[in-house]
Amino acid sequence: MTLHPTTFIAGPSGPWRIASIVAVRGESLPLAPALRVSDPSRAGDGDSWMLRGTASNLRYTSHDGLTELRAAQSALGRPEATCAVLIPITKSAAWWALAQDERMGVFQRAHHHAIGMPYVRAVARALYHSRDRGEPFDFLTWFEFAPGDTPAFDQLLAELRASEEWGYVEREVDIRLTRS
Amino acid sequence: MTLHPTTFIAGPSGPWRIASIVAVRGESLPLAPALRVSDPSRAGDGDSWMLRGTASNLRYTSHDGLTELRAAQSALGRPEATCAVLIPITKSAAWWALAQDERMGVFQRAHHHAIGMPYVRAVARALYHSRDRGEPFDFLTWFEFAPGDTPAFDQLLAELRASEEWGYVEREVDIRLTRS
Repeated sequence: MTLHPTTFIAGPSGPWRIASIVAVRGESLPLAPALRVSDPSRAGDGDSWMLRGTASNLRYTSHDGLTELRAAQSALGRPEATCAVLIPITKSAAWWALAQDERMGVFQRAHHHAIGMPYVRAVARALYHSRDRGEPFDFLTWFEFAPGDTPAFDQLLAELRASEEWGYVEREVDIRLTRS
Repeated sequence: MTLHPTTFIAGPSGPWRIASIVAVRGESLPLAPALRVSDPSRAGDGDSWMLRGTASNLRYTSHDGLTELRAAQSALGRPEATCAVLIPITKSAAWWALAQDERMGVFQRAHHHAIGMPYVRAVARALYHSRDRGEPFDFLTWFEFAPGDTPAFDQLLAELRASEEWGYVEREVDIRLTRS
């Protein structure tokens, strides 16, 4: 598993047009015209904000879950996937005070894996870890899908947000994008 | 659980005198006279090397293990603990390709927690995560103990290094320090 340090930069231009930025919980982020996904730390003077994360090892997925996921999931960058959503999330101090088996228990009771699996072919997904880097969010999740799969994506989000796990989310921003 | 981004800087001066730097596996680090533990990114021109990490949530410790650990472990900074050891470690690609339950299984079979528990009162310990920050090492482990507990510390290391878990260590440096 290779590490991918990645930076999302909102500014005047970029391959993704920002359609909306909505605060689901906690403080929002400023609206900007466009977003680009870049190597670390290449923001310019005219940029609005920058979020950094690292695609790293998954911390709650079992061997069987990972095998199932890798066999089924779509890759990023499909030509038809012209919609993207960036969801930065911060979990509460109560979450981070839990031990590994307790956090794993919340994931399992929330059916996080089972909720996501029916969507992984239509909705490509990448997870970037930010917490250890001292970033304002703990995770950045990036989704890509075809416009026709938007209702399916919204259904996936609704199911996750209704789960026990989301009780530990204290900040969440929903950033919708379309490929320019 | 609060995050503590921490930087270890080897250079001409600092509260810890570097007694030795030994490569246990893989490439070593340059010898320098002293080490200081600092807020991030305050290295100067005369410094030799800098390693950064974040004290973050533990990823393989159960609720029971964490409760036992918190009740027994000594804090850093005890006046009698004039010996310190910094051990930066990088694990192999094979380790990071494992799923969470497989990595947890290696920890359990290696008796990592059981090996460490008898030593946690004599040997204070802090773990800093570096991998998501794109650092050369995955972890930095910092130990503090009184000079008389050096044989106990060496016994702890010998037990850990003989375990299945250490089969996944591809770089390890052993840096011995004494308080100036």
